[in-house]
Amino acid sequence: MDLDIVFLGTSGSVPTARRGLAGTLVRRGGDRILVDCGEGTQRQLLRSSVGLVELQEIFLTHYHADHYLGLPGMLKTFALRGRELPLTVYGPPGLKDLFGVLRRIFGKLTYDVELRELRPGEALERGDHRIFAFAVEHGVTSNGYCLIEEPRPGRFDVETARKLGLPQGPLFGRLQAGETVELPGGGSVAPEQVLGPPRAGRKIVLAGDTRPGREVLEAARDADVLVHEATFASEEGARAEETLHATAAGAAELAKAAGVKMLALTHLSNRYFGPEIAREARAVFAETVVPRDFDIIDVRFPERGGPRLVKGGALGKREEADSHGGDGSGGDGGGPRGGRGDSDDPELGRHPVGARAGGRAPSDAAR
Amino acid sequence: MDLDIVFLGTSGSVPTARRGLAGTLVRRGGDRILVDCGEGTQRQLLRSSVGLVELQEIFLTHYHADHYLGLPGMLKTFALRGRELPLTVYGPPGLKDLFGVLRRIFGKLTYDVELRELRPGEALERGDHRIFAFAVEHGVTSNGYCLIEEPRPGRFDVETARKLGLPQGPLFGRLQAGETVELPGGGSVAPEQVLGPPRAGRKIVLAGDTRPGREVLEAARDADVLVHEATFASEEGARAEETLHATAAGAAELAKAAGVKMLALTHLSNRYFGPEIAREARAVFAETVVPRDFDIIDVRFPERGGPRLVKGGALGKREEADSHGGDGSGGDGGGPRGGRGDSDDPELGRHPVGARAGGRAPSDAAR
Repeated sequence: MDLDIVFLGTSGSVPTARRGLAGTLVRRGGDRILVDCGEGTQRQLLRSSVGLVELQEIFLTHYHADHYLGLPGMLKTFALRGRELPLTVYGPPGLKDLFGVLRRIFGKLTYDVELRELRPGEALERGDHRIFAFAVEHGVTSNGYCLIEEPRPGRFDVETARKLGLPQGPLFGRLQAGETVELPGGGSVAPEQVLGPPRAGRKIVLAGDTRPGREVLEAARDADVLVHEATFASEEGARAEETLHATAAGAAELAKAAGVKMLALTHLSNRYFGPEIAREARAVFAETVVPRDFDIIDVRFPERGGPRLVKGGALGKREEADSHGGDGSGGDGGGPRGGRGDSDDPELGRHPVGARAGGRAPSDAAR
Repeated sequence: MDLDIVFLGTSGSVPTARRGLAGTLVRRGGDRILVDCGEGTQRQLLRSSVGLVELQEIFLTHYHADHYLGLPGMLKTFALRGRELPLTVYGPPGLKDLFGVLRRIFGKLTYDVELRELRPGEALERGDHRIFAFAVEHGVTSNGYCLIEEPRPGRFDVETARKLGLPQGPLFGRLQAGETVELPGGGSVAPEQVLGPPRAGRKIVLAGDTRPGREVLEAARDADVLVHEATFASEEGARAEETLHATAAGAAELAKAAGVKMLALTHLSNRYFGPEIAREARAVFAETVVPRDFDIIDVRFPERGGPRLVKGGALGKREEADSHGGDGSGGDGGGPRGGRGDSDDPELGRHPVGARAGGRAPSDAAR
């Protein structure tokens, strides 16, 4: 089953020319789960290859404006399209109060919005996976979210099955599903005779805004991907502590201690472009990426290579030329610093990066 | 004195991949006046060559969410930067109620926000120009806004001045300022002896959301530029009437009747890309443009050529390649229609278009 994380907005507190405000889409099979919805998220979706799909679930990490101001406009847009499908919004306690205010903006909708407040530790059980909320340390009521898949059946040993006299066909599937089956010639085969040990499911953790905290560490243990904020670099460590945000190094220390496979840093202050955050974190934990808007992390099963960053993997056709065709060719217009050269981008060539979605040549992209 | 209109968001009701929500910046000399502030306006400013400047005045036309949802985030961003400069927000009656809601989102700011409700007919007198509110027809309390410059002194006739014995120098300026001056050799010269008839100042009109209405027509009479909505094409005339919006043809009829020099159509429904709106309007009124986001109308004095559309005139460096380097190379990802070819764009080659801001070659823009 496909599982990926689409970065729609990777700037903290204020947008920049290059980075939108918080919004991360988790896609698993046919599920589409939006985590946070900063101002402009509906347009980021429109600009992406995802499009503004009829999301059924939105999770909010906390109620700072840069994490929810995209909601009223998006809810309104859905209504203008005549949406009838219900929507559930999850968030820490305070969600209903927030909607008391937002409702005065978006008014009457054409569909139902269910509000579900989740406390740390509460889980949504969904058969083959669950999503649970955990506590973070950001000074306001906040949740991090973890999506964890149930263990998968072990590898099916076809050779052993044949030796046991099992004919290839539906019996294989029943065994893999955990059922003991009768052999056509008499006798039976139990699943453990042909299946290896159960294989772990995948685990992704989105911590939201927080300083590196004990609960995040526990939730992130052995995760395939930890999406953690890195609002600051260590040069602003005091400010990070004061505002209960993380530095790149702090998040990397946590990722290392938790033994995650990949750390993705987001929610950058507008004074950073990404490469300096990546450099600082990688000195501590090599498997760090700093996605830009419209990057994807493809969370492959370990036997298929594990998580990988796909740069520009969610770029809409019209955005390709701009947002990633020019990787490293200039500065972020929204920040106070100057341009940077390609050589300054430590991400280039480091990670197994898939082809850009459309595979356009630069000359094509420039039309 | 420079006067121009920067289009930051030209989509109606919902954004598209290519067009943001309502936001128009009027720049006159050092003044920066934002008219409407849809979701994402702060980022559009950041993406533009203007930057997110400390606006001192914002005018709202009405309180539909697509016209003000960018305000709380922008006000918050100013506060995070420690702004101290006061801000005045103007709007029709209801502004204080609106801010009662928005204040619960943006919280405490570092600067004062003055709210000034303007009724149709109320004017702000500003020496060499004034801004007045006028009624529109949109079914909710709404204002259109008109900026009109005082007449300028007539052309100074240097030859006549010399014949009258006036030495070149400060006396010229005093005469032009309307003062009667003494001649060095005795006698005096009155302004009317050396000045031609007063020349009209410029007039720009931003109607906001409205069906083509009588008051708009009156306000727009002989305007240099009328910025009018064209949410629909005539094929959706019934819907335009029902929702109190304008069709392209309807706005063009009004512009023609008002005798404006240039009509700029904006607030397009996401089903239109621009060229079809332009075609329809130009069949009625040739001097119509349909700006895209980051286009500018340079409102030159008549003797300098009058208003002209500068395509991509406000593009930030990083946006050039994308938004206008690819004029006509594909469809608007946010709309239901397919791509369009260059030949489909009636704007190409029609209007005197200045060089793009940065003057980059396509190969350069693709980096």
